[in-house]
Amino acid sequence: VSGEAAFLDLLRAMARDPAARGLMDDAAVLPVGGERLVLTSDTLVAGVHFLPDDPPADIGWKLAAVNLSDLAAKGAQPLACLMGYALSGDTGWDARFLAGLGEALETHGMPLVGGDTVSMPAGAPRSFTLTAIGRATSDPVPARMGGRAGDRLFLTGPVGDAGAGLAQLLADRDATGPLVAACRRPRPRMTEGRALAPHVHAMMDVSDGLLIDAARMARASGLGVEIDHVPLSPALAATLSDMREGKLRAATAGDDYELLCAAPFLPDLRFPMIEIGRMVEAPGMKLSIDGVEMPLPERLGYEHGRI
Amino acid sequence: VSGEAAFLDLLRAMARDPAARGLMDDAAVLPVGGERLVLTSDTLVAGVHFLPDDPPADIGWKLAAVNLSDLAAKGAQPLACLMGYALSGDTGWDARFLAGLGEALETHGMPLVGGDTVSMPAGAPRSFTLTAIGRATSDPVPARMGGRAGDRLFLTGPVGDAGAGLAQLLADRDATGPLVAACRRPRPRMTEGRALAPHVHAMMDVSDGLLIDAARMARASGLGVEIDHVPLSPALAATLSDMREGKLRAATAGDDYELLCAAPFLPDLRFPMIEIGRMVEAPGMKLSIDGVEMPLPERLGYEHGRI
Repeated sequence: VSGEAAFLDLLRAMARDPAARGLMDDAAVLPVGGERLVLTSDTLVAGVHFLPDDPPADIGWKLAAVNLSDLAAKGAQPLACLMGYALSGDTGWDARFLAGLGEALETHGMPLVGGDTVSMPAGAPRSFTLTAIGRATSDPVPARMGGRAGDRLFLTGPVGDAGAGLAQLLADRDATGPLVAACRRPRPRMTEGRALAPHVHAMMDVSDGLLIDAARMARASGLGVEIDHVPLSPALAATLSDMREGKLRAATAGDDYELLCAAPFLPDLRFPMIEIGRMVEAPGMKLSIDGVEMPLPERLGYEHGRI
Repeated sequence: VSGEAAFLDLLRAMARDPAARGLMDDAAVLPVGGERLVLTSDTLVAGVHFLPDDPPADIGWKLAAVNLSDLAAKGAQPLACLMGYALSGDTGWDARFLAGLGEALETHGMPLVGGDTVSMPAGAPRSFTLTAIGRATSDPVPARMGGRAGDRLFLTGPVGDAGAGLAQLLADRDATGPLVAACRRPRPRMTEGRALAPHVHAMMDVSDGLLIDAARMARASGLGVEIDHVPLSPALAATLSDMREGKLRAATAGDDYELLCAAPFLPDLRFPMIEIGRMVEAPGMKLSIDGVEMPLPERLGYEHGRI
């Protein structure tokens, strides 16, 4: 990862335009003709971001969902997307991938308007890039930074389902159920993001794990963070014997795509929000689960090259 | 290629938004806030679009240049770009790639504002995707379609240099000179594209070969095309023994990135344009070189998955 860190440093040195937000945010924000465009791009690679034998329709869905989630974190309305597609050499596979992608795009009103297909050399892993373009709906456009000491931290929903679903799939590729569905068909929080955007000091999606993403928000805001609640879904809770250990695992699992936001208070919204902690002056992170302060795990979540 | 054709058919069925232009054009055109955005995305894969041992700075340059060229074909002003980058595992290589990319972006005023890095599994070919966003400067925004019978066809410069440079490199990886430079450091015709856009009925960049790209423009316009001049650079002409055969090769070589446009006439411009033929009612293509009508070669240029 140190080579990657060095590369990101070089990229940041190049990306001096204010629209890039120092490459420290989920998306770029570019003013154009009286609008502010929200721009994001994510790549999925077989064996890294999905299991090579995952159903292709679910991979297509996920490619759309992870990009939509970055728009959601900015409260943006999807406008269009472009795809870079490495042909798999298997026409049926490609068709099923497109069907899943199309389902997600249709659900969230993001038209595919262009891109590029390439044929990869034999043996190369499947990989796909989607670039999503949205229109900001609030001013300012929420960022990871901007949290203030005393802000309360809220989540749009429980965490850990997708990570538990992945564990089930790794044990049994034929596993099904709500946790597997959470892993394979993440739901980007578009409506919630737009409703929250005018009211938050900071917002981001939880893609790499609640602890690591909360730590990133705090660091970007020059603050620390205290987390005293790790919300679980009933489906996940039902699978746990040791609840505290299960919550710790849920807080470091990835691919949840719930929104995390910092705000002094939230108005009445048409959906429930879960309060999980607060931003504090003192840097660092404190975690307590069910009233007991926990030592921080060595790994707070996934580290990867989101730029 | 039939699997790819089937895939493109599926994509076109999905891409019904008018911004997609039926995926038949070099770029999408999306109206936003009183502006029209021009959107394009191109992927380069080692062993497909560049030689694995090409200098990394040239590959970075080329990634920017091919996307900029798509903007040039729309007369668009570059606004921003996002990159999907597969880390090579070689920090020095990555740094040199970025230096070349940065040089091209700086030259053409297109800031890098975001993207994604991924680590590929060992042995995977290097691949990079750039998505470029520009602002249209003319109304309508030129397209491949729109040519009219009787329009004259013009090129911004000679063709075949890059293809000849590639042939030199395949024979001798240490080859240098203007043809190799044309292959490795293509120059997108930004200024020319913007100056031409208000005056043309149709425009596109010549990336896959003059014959195949002219045939695409004619087909998209519901017309045929006659080409009676294949302009060569002095550097290329100096390497040829059989001029007619060399011109035929130049007309089917790729990676030229000159602009091809159809217009009844062109006003005085600050750069020379080369007239090469005309659009005609009768579908199909006629080619004559130095006054002699030639049978069309079996391969008119590169077929690939630009969508």
